[in-house]
Amino acid sequence: MTTSDRDATTVSLDPADWEADRAVAHRMVDDMFDYLQSVRERPAWQHVPDEVRAALDENLPREGTPLAQVYDEFRERVLPYPTGNLHPRFFGWVMGNGTVTGMLGEMLMAGMNAHGAGYDQSALYVEQQVIRWLAQLVGYPQDASGILVSGGTMANLNGLAVARNEKAGFALRTEGLQSSEAPRFTCYGGSETHSWIYKACELMGLGRQAFRSVPASEDYTVDVAALRAMIEADIAAGDKPFCIIGTVGTVNTGAVDDIAALRTLADEFDCWLHVDGAFGSLAAWSERHRHLVEAQAQADSIAFDLHKWGYMPYEIGCVLTRSSDAQDKTYGTSASYLMPAMRGVGVNNTYFADRGIQLSRSFRALKAWMSMKQQGVDRIGAVIGQNIEQAQYLSAKVDAHPDLERLAPTSLNIVCFRHLADGYDEDALDRLNEELLMRVQESGFAVPSQTLLGGRFALRVCITNHRTTYADLDALIDEISRHARAIIDD
Amino acid sequence: MTTSDRDATTVSLDPADWEADRAVAHRMVDDMFDYLQSVRERPAWQHVPDEVRAALDENLPREGTPLAQVYDEFRERVLPYPTGNLHPRFFGWVMGNGTVTGMLGEMLMAGMNAHGAGYDQSALYVEQQVIRWLAQLVGYPQDASGILVSGGTMANLNGLAVARNEKAGFALRTEGLQSSEAPRFTCYGGSETHSWIYKACELMGLGRQAFRSVPASEDYTVDVAALRAMIEADIAAGDKPFCIIGTVGTVNTGAVDDIAALRTLADEFDCWLHVDGAFGSLAAWSERHRHLVEAQAQADSIAFDLHKWGYMPYEIGCVLTRSSDAQDKTYGTSASYLMPAMRGVGVNNTYFADRGIQLSRSFRALKAWMSMKQQGVDRIGAVIGQNIEQAQYLSAKVDAHPDLERLAPTSLNIVCFRHLADGYDEDALDRLNEELLMRVQESGFAVPSQTLLGGRFALRVCITNHRTTYADLDALIDEISRHARAIIDD
Ligand SMILES: Cc1ncc(COP(=O)(O)O)c(C=O)c1O
Ligand SMILES: Cc1ncc(COP(=O)(O)O)c(C=O)c1O
Repeated sequence: MTTSDRDATTVSLDPADWEADRAVAHRMVDDMFDYLQSVRERPAWQHVPDEVRAALDENLPREGTPLAQVYDEFRERVLPYPTGNLHPRFFGWVMGNGTVTGMLGEMLMAGMNAHGAGYDQSALYVEQQVIRWLAQLVGYPQDASGILVSGGTMANLNGLAVARNEKAGFALRTEGLQSSEAPRFTCYGGSETHSWIYKACELMGLGRQAFRSVPASEDYTVDVAALRAMIEADIAAGDKPFCIIGTVGTVNTGAVDDIAALRTLADEFDCWLHVDGAFGSLAAWSERHRHLVEAQAQADSIAFDLHKWGYMPYEIGCVLTRSSDAQDKTYGTSASYLMPAMRGVGVNNTYFADRGIQLSRSFRALKAWMSMKQQGVDRIGAVIGQNIEQAQYLSAKVDAHPDLERLAPTSLNIVCFRHLADGYDEDALDRLNEELLMRVQESGFAVPSQTLLGGRFALRVCITNHRTTYADLDALIDEISRHARAIIDD
Repeated sequence: MTTSDRDATTVSLDPADWEADRAVAHRMVDDMFDYLQSVRERPAWQHVPDEVRAALDENLPREGTPLAQVYDEFRERVLPYPTGNLHPRFFGWVMGNGTVTGMLGEMLMAGMNAHGAGYDQSALYVEQQVIRWLAQLVGYPQDASGILVSGGTMANLNGLAVARNEKAGFALRTEGLQSSEAPRFTCYGGSETHSWIYKACELMGLGRQAFRSVPASEDYTVDVAALRAMIEADIAAGDKPFCIIGTVGTVNTGAVDDIAALRTLADEFDCWLHVDGAFGSLAAWSERHRHLVEAQAQADSIAFDLHKWGYMPYEIGCVLTRSSDAQDKTYGTSASYLMPAMRGVGVNNTYFADRGIQLSRSFRALKAWMSMKQQGVDRIGAVIGQNIEQAQYLSAKVDAHPDLERLAPTSLNIVCFRHLADGYDEDALDRLNEELLMRVQESGFAVPSQTLLGGRFALRVCITNHRTTYADLDALIDEISRHARAIIDD
């Protein structure tokens, strides 16, 4: 058989009809623009109907289907039932909203499909650029090491592993924690530390109990005196404290730990200081609020997300170390099929895969580069500042409202409160507020989420939302009152 | 101040001029279609010029810039200098190419910006659907547990941690490896196991030496007798073997370990059997080649990528466990701000964040769902099969060529060989082939990569490329010969 005989039956996955698919792509763009432009007109969230769930349970698609038809199914079954976090009144958990620019950046990224491990390619230089910008924004030196990762959990895990390895004092990478030389490692953070710490300690073989959960003060920041006492007791018991974790913006209430005090303790006890600034770190982008978080620059490593308060679409987080080689020292590997060359594609260059866990990596830097350039960091910072001021505004409204009770100080962008009712005991209030939350969500009007504060059920409004207006917050309070009255009257 | 006074200055990150940005988006679509349609006309790779590098080093963009202008910079500085893996003659490392459908799926994903931890939303059902399809394709039961992750390293790490926890025999999640009850854990795989294993063992606190690298047979598969001997010796020395790692498609040569033999050993020694099928697992999608890898269904967990031989854009990998609850048992956490509700957005549902390390997760399932439906699994499988046959074709050409020497058996889609030259000793051949590789890459004609086999420098052609034709392979051989003659003549 000749080569051209063989190629007569060669198939690719490129479109059979480029023009037909191009037309569908243009429809997608128009529809997504319409969708984003009209997000306020739709419910903040709605339940996925059973018939849609059933339709999403199909046999393995052996045969192909024209793109236009697959897209119609997407429009009918998928697009109408989102998590809801695009919506101006979505205040649940800590979710960003994405932007048009972010969406388009993601398309260009996937079209280029650059492999982000290293190499002589534009994607590498764009990521280096973005890392330098991000380092500057947290007050780090320009030669700080950094890498973009899939999110806050991965960023924090990356930092904690660097901390462990940097402070190990023996060949931990080779011998592991089961070495006879291994001390019993412990790390420390407030009881409000996000649950990534448990996932990380477990994965890293330290076990949950290696994390010493330090009591929080009244304002939900870590109690520094209690922290010192715990470290001293652990050292006396023969443990090796290796890391203090400060949180800049706790998930429950947005509390900002006293990072300067933690720095002092870290120096005194030869610990790494890692800051989890998943969302709070971004307050540094707001001129007016930078002072609230600027002590983060004293950390040895910082983790934060751009898919939360940077408003970029999922997934994009970042972890930086002040030292320019700490990440490489923890993650660098060598393998014959990866060895750098003197020239060519795989030339010896920054090798991002040596700064973290992933090898294959997308060009997620592109959406950050495009978003920061197009929106401008000052404008993004202004929206972040606006969210902080909106939280203050909402707090003031809660405080002024006879039937509402704030349950935590408002330090950044989170307001936790509950509805009161005459003659209800604490358990009845919990049940009232839980029912209230469900009704507000189910109404499609707004999506707060919940948490427990002092053991009591709290409505939690987290404003990492560039579409929220002050009018939305007024309306939220009205809606909450209306539903609460209906429940109480029942 | 009234609410409307406040909102008079409220800003969002939505476009100031929707129609202007929409026009840019349509240009992007047209350009990317043109770019993908004409990929064959451009070099497979080219060096990033110094002036472009310099232009990519800018000050922090405080002020915004119109999207059209940012996009122009992208077109000028970024788009022309890709890794190259879109190109029909890119054969380096193990990189996929992406497709038009994948690119569009990524745009829709970022536009919806669904948060994929769990929740009552369409994204959840789409991911469940994709997981069921993927389970079926590897021969797993329909209630297998699974999760989409960022890539092969994360997928394998996820599986290895499940293996460790399932076989620990004490409260490892709580107490960690430093518990007095902890045995000395060891795991096993061939010496051709990909370097993820070192990253994973280090991160997991086991240390590199916990991985016992078993000598490879002639054909680069793990030597099963040597594996048995190592396990027995380790047990005799008091270690606790917890996992055997079988590779279905090694990175260097595409070798497929004898999974059935590994299953027997795993049962005998109470080990977990994890299969790394980063790319090789996908051979199961080709009717004609499924038999080469079908023993993978005997594994307790399987990791593979869709961004490699599934041709989808970065990032998308998958890890499955045969048991429906093993992932939850390793990764499940509970936190007050994440507790499931009876109703509403956060209703008690499959919670993907309890099956892996990430909490925030993108809706990466969408590009898989769209690609599998649009292309059809049989067509994707046909292209995978075509790549295997192309590798066989290239092998035959190498074998028939007087100046080329194949350096490894060709079992799936990888061909390793070198150019010979009269009177050259082994070191001179290494230098010749290294220079040859650089010239081929720098010519922009094609991108093979390199590895070491038996200590010798090998040209490595890995065909995970849906755009490659047989004619490309003929031309590759011609180009290699031409450059080799030029070097030898120098
Ligand atoms: C303070 C804090 N840290 C870490 C995380 C985890 O980040 P991710 O969800 O991106 O993994 C979160 C998520 O809400 C958070 O609020
Ligand atoms: C066999 C094998 N396992 C694991 C990996 C790592 O996968 P990823 O690069 O997606 O992290 C690779 C990558 O080439 C591989 O070939």
